[in-house]
Amino acid sequence: MRFFVEIIAEKLHGELQGNPKRIIENVAPVEKAGEKDITFLADPKFLEAAKNSKAACILAPDTAKQELASFQNCVIYVKNPRYAFMLLLREAEKAMRPVYPVGIDKLAAVSPNAIIGHRAHIGPGCTVESGAEIGANAIIEAGSYIGHNVKIGARTRICPGVKIMNNCQIGSDCILFPGAVIGSDGFGYVFNNGVHEKIPQIGKVIIGDKVEIGANTCIDRAAMETTYIGDGTKIDNLVHIAHNVQIGRNCIILAHTTIAGSVTIEDYSTLSGQCCIADHVKIGKGATLMGRTGVLSDVKPGELLCGHFARPRTEAFKIEALLGKLPEMRKELIKIRKQLEKICPEEKKLIETENRKPPMPPNPIQAPEK
Amino acid sequence: MRFFVEIIAEKLHGELQGNPKRIIENVAPVEKAGEKDITFLADPKFLEAAKNSKAACILAPDTAKQELASFQNCVIYVKNPRYAFMLLLREAEKAMRPVYPVGIDKLAAVSPNAIIGHRAHIGPGCTVESGAEIGANAIIEAGSYIGHNVKIGARTRICPGVKIMNNCQIGSDCILFPGAVIGSDGFGYVFNNGVHEKIPQIGKVIIGDKVEIGANTCIDRAAMETTYIGDGTKIDNLVHIAHNVQIGRNCIILAHTTIAGSVTIEDYSTLSGQCCIADHVKIGKGATLMGRTGVLSDVKPGELLCGHFARPRTEAFKIEALLGKLPEMRKELIKIRKQLEKICPEEKKLIETENRKPPMPPNPIQAPEK
Amino acid sequence: MRFFVEIIAEKLHGELQGNPKRIIENVAPVEKAGEKDITFLADPKFLEAAKNSKAACILAPDTAKQELASFQNCVIYVKNPRYAFMLLLREAEKAMRPVYPVGIDKLAAVSPNAIIGHRAHIGPGCTVESGAEIGANAIIEAGSYIGHNVKIGARTRICPGVKIMNNCQIGSDCILFPGAVIGSDGFGYVFNNGVHEKIPQIGKVIIGDKVEIGANTCIDRAAMETTYIGDGTKIDNLVHIAHNVQIGRNCIILAHTTIAGSVTIEDYSTLSGQCCIADHVKIGKGATLMGRTGVLSDVKPGELLCGHFARPRTEAFKIEALLGKLPEMRKELIKIRKQLEKICPEEKKLIETENRKPPMPPNPIQAPEK
Repeated sequence: MRFFVEIIAEKLHGELQGNPKRIIENVAPVEKAGEKDITFLADPKFLEAAKNSKAACILAPDTAKQELASFQNCVIYVKNPRYAFMLLLREAEKAMRPVYPVGIDKLAAVSPNAIIGHRAHIGPGCTVESGAEIGANAIIEAGSYIGHNVKIGARTRICPGVKIMNNCQIGSDCILFPGAVIGSDGFGYVFNNGVHEKIPQIGKVIIGDKVEIGANTCIDRAAMETTYIGDGTKIDNLVHIAHNVQIGRNCIILAHTTIAGSVTIEDYSTLSGQCCIADHVKIGKGATLMGRTGVLSDVKPGELLCGHFARPRTEAFKIEALLGKLPEMRKELIKIRKQLEKICPEEKKLIETENRKPPMPPNPIQAPEK
Repeated sequence: MRFFVEIIAEKLHGELQGNPKRIIENVAPVEKAGEKDITFLADPKFLEAAKNSKAACILAPDTAKQELASFQNCVIYVKNPRYAFMLLLREAEKAMRPVYPVGIDKLAAVSPNAIIGHRAHIGPGCTVESGAEIGANAIIEAGSYIGHNVKIGARTRICPGVKIMNNCQIGSDCILFPGAVIGSDGFGYVFNNGVHEKIPQIGKVIIGDKVEIGANTCIDRAAMETTYIGDGTKIDNLVHIAHNVQIGRNCIILAHTTIAGSVTIEDYSTLSGQCCIADHVKIGKGATLMGRTGVLSDVKPGELLCGHFARPRTEAFKIEALLGKLPEMRKELIKIRKQLEKICPEEKKLIETENRKPPMPPNPIQAPEK
Repeated sequence: MRFFVEIIAEKLHGELQGNPKRIIENVAPVEKAGEKDITFLADPKFLEAAKNSKAACILAPDTAKQELASFQNCVIYVKNPRYAFMLLLREAEKAMRPVYPVGIDKLAAVSPNAIIGHRAHIGPGCTVESGAEIGANAIIEAGSYIGHNVKIGARTRICPGVKIMNNCQIGSDCILFPGAVIGSDGFGYVFNNGVHEKIPQIGKVIIGDKVEIGANTCIDRAAMETTYIGDGTKIDNLVHIAHNVQIGRNCIILAHTTIAGSVTIEDYSTLSGQCCIADHVKIGKGATLMGRTGVLSDVKPGELLCGHFARPRTEAFKIEALLGKLPEMRKELIKIRKQLEKICPEEKKLIETENRKPPMPPNPIQAPEK
C-alpha cells in the first residue's frame, strides 16, 4: 500500500498531527516500525516505546494528545486505536490482494449444468459439477472441487484445494481456507455378521454467512438431515466436525478440536484448541472450554471448563495444584498412621487383626493399584 | 429417489399395510417425516410418535402390528426395522449418486504406462503416474493423485483431492475420502553432527478390501517394509498413522487419533477420538480405548481403557471422582495432624524436631511441589 | 536397485568378506533378509540372528569380524553399521525415485510473470501465480498451488496437492509432503458489536533450508510480520502452527501437535505427538515435551516435561502412580478419622460442633465436589 497520512486520517475519522503528505507504505508493531510504517498505541504501558518510535505515524487515543504532542513524526488521534488499526490493516490487505480474473479458467472443468454467478472467478484445476450454483463475485481458487448441486453464496472465497461434496450449501461472505473438506461422509456403521456395514450418509452440510473454515478442517455431512454451522462462526485449522452437529452463530472453535456426532453448540461458545466433545452433548450459549478440555456431558450456558475430564476452571486448577502435593499427602498419611499406632498400641493390634481377615481374596483397598 | 411402497416392501421382504401405490420420495426421522417420507420405528418408546407421525410409511417391527393397525398411512412390518431402514438408505443413496462418466477426463494427466480398468472413471485434474493400475469400475474423482506403480482394486472410490504415493496398494470396495494422503514418508531421522538426517522411507502402504479412510487422514509408508491396514477397517477423519503400523481387520479408529510408528492393532479393536498410542505398542484383539486415551504400553485383548495415561475404565472413573475430593482430603489431613498434636503434645515436639533436621537441603517431601 | 557388493563396500568405505560379484537388489531387516537382500547388524543381541540370516550381505561392525568370519554369504565391515545402512537406503531410495520431467506440464497453469528455475519440474494440475520464483532443480508435483510472489529454494520438493499461499518463502532442500498448507490466514478476530470481525492477516511464512513439513500440516501466516521455521527443523503430519510462531533450528515436532499464536520454540527442541502449547509461551533450547503434553507457561532450556498440565517427567510419573493409590488413601483417611474419634471421644464431639457451624451455606469443603 502507499498512502498519504492525511488520506488515512480521513478514512479513520481521526485528527492528524504532523506533515499531511508523509507517505505510509506498511504497518508494523510499535517497537519495529520504521520511517515508512504506521503503528498504533493501545496499551498505555507502551507510551514510552511510542514516544521513541521511528514510525512515520502512530494511531493513538485521543487521551494521549499531551504525551505525544512533541512526537517527531505524525500522529493520528482516534477513539479506539486498536480498532482503527484493524481498519487500516483491512486497507493494506486489499492493496495486497491479487486480482482474480473474472470467468472460468481454461484449465477448469465446469459442467454446462452449473450456474456461475456474475463476476465470479473459477481458477485453473477447479471442477464444478452439474447443478452447482456459484454466487456473484465468488472466488473459487485453483484446484478446488465443487460437487453436484452445491450452492455457494455471493462474495464467498474458496481457497485452493478445498473440496465441497454434493448437495452442501455455503453462505455469502465466507472464507474456506486451503484443503478444507465439506460434506465428506459421516462416520456411521452398523456391526452385522462380524463386519462394520456402512450406514449411507445422505444428508448434507449447510454453512451460514460470514463463516470461516480453517485449512484442512473437515465437516461431515449428516446421516439423513443437516450438519449446520451458524452465521459468523469462525473455525480454525484441522478441526473435525462429525455428522449431524449443530453449531450456532458467532462461535469460535480452535485448532484440532474434535466434535463428535450430533453435538449441539449454542451461539457465542468458545472451544479452544484440542477440545474433545462426546457425541450428543449440548454446549450451552456462551460457554467457554479452555484448551484440550474433554466433555462427556452437557455444559451449561456461560460455563468455563477445563481438564481432561471437564470441570469448572477454578476447581480444575485447585485439583491440579493439589496433585503436586499428592506425594507429600501420602507420606503424611503414613506418618499419621505410625503415630496413631504409637499413641495407641492396642489400635495397631486391632488394625493388624482387621488386615488379617479376610486373608483371601486380597484386601480390596489394594485392588485398584494395578 | 421415487418408489411405490409396494416396491420397498418387496425389496425389504416386509409385509405391507396400506395403499401399495403410495409414493415415497425421501427418508426422515419419525418426528420430522412428512407425507412423502418413509421412516422407521426401532425403539418402543417412540411408538406414540410413530402413531401420530405424518410419514407416508413406517418401517415397524412385526411385534407392533396391533398398535399400528389403525395408522393412517402405510406400514411395512419387518423383523429388524433399523437394519431394513439402513438397506433403504442404501437405495436412497444409490438414487442420489451422481453418474461418473466411464473413461479418462480430457483434463486428467494419465501416463501411457498406467493400466486403467474396465469402466473405471478418471476425473478432471487427476494425475495417474506410470505403472499405476486402476481396477475395474474404480472411481478416481477430480484432482486426485495416483503415484507410480500404485494399485487400486475394483470398485474402489477415490474421492477428490486424495494423494496416493508411489508403490502403495489399495484393495477393492474401499472408499478414500477427500484429502486423504496414503504413503507419505514416515517420520524417521538420525541425529548426526548436530542435524537430523533423513532416513529414507522406501517401504509402502498396503490397504485391504472394504476399508474406508476419512477425509485428510494420513497414513505413512513404512521405512523399509509395509504399513498395513486390514480388511474392513474403518478410519475417521484427520487420523495420523505412522510408518510400519500394522492394523488388523474390522477395527474402528476415530477422528484425530495419533498412532505412532510400528504400533500393532489387532482385529476388532476400537480407538475413539483423539487417542494417542506410543510407538511399538500392541493393542490386543477387541480392545476398546475411550476418547483421548493415552497408551504407553501394551493393551490386553478385550481391555476397556481410559485416561490421559490409560487405565481400566472403572479405575479411571473412580480416580476421576476422587480427584474432586482432593481438596477435602487435604483439609482433613491437616485437621487430623492438628488433633493428633493436641492429643499428644510430645508428638508435636517430636515432629518439629524431625522437621528441623536436616535444615538443608529443603525437605524432600516439598521438592516436587514446584 | 541392483549393485555388486564390491560397489557397496566401496561406497561405504567398508571391508568386504566374501564374493565381490554377489548381487544386491534390496534392503531388509536381519530376520527377513533373503538371498538378494542386504541387512545390518547394529545391536549385539541380534548376532545369532545375523549368523543364521539368509541375507546376501550383512553390514557389520568391525568388532564382529571373529564372530562372522564363517558367515555363508558376504559381510561388509564398517565402523557404524546403522549409519552405513542409512547411506545405503539413500542409494536404494535414489534408485527407486521416479524421474520428474524437466519443465512445465501442459496441464499446469503457470503465470508468464513467474520465474521457473533451471531444470525445475512443474507437474500437471499445478498453478504457479504471478511473481512466484521456483528454484533450480525444484520439483513441484501434481496439483500443487504456488501463490503470488512465493519463493521456493533450489532442490526443494513440493509433493502433490501442497498449497503455498501468497508471499511465503520456502528454503532450499526442503520437502513439503502432500496436502501441507503454508500461509493460510492466522486465526485473528476482534469482537465488536456482537460479531467476530476478521483481523486481516497480511504477514507471511518463511521456512528455512532442509526443513520437512508433514502431510496435511498447516502453518499460518503472521498477522503482520513472519511465522518462521528454522533450518533443519522436521515437522510431522497434521501439525497446526498458528500465526507469528517462531521455531528455531533442528527442532522435531510430531503429529497432531497444536502450537498457538506467537509461541517461540528454540533450537533443538522436541515436541512429541499431540502436544498443545498455549499462545505466547517460550520453549527453551533443547527442551523435550513427551506425548500430549499441555504447556501453559514458559519451559526452561533442556527441561523434560509431561502431562495434561506439563510437569517435570519424574514428578508427573510419581503423581500418576499415586493416583492409583487415591482410593486407598481416601479409605485410610476415613479409617484414621474413626480411630481418632475412638481414642478421643471429646474430639469427635468437637468436630461435630465444628461441622454444625455454619449450617448454611453448605460446607465450603464440599463445594468443589460437583
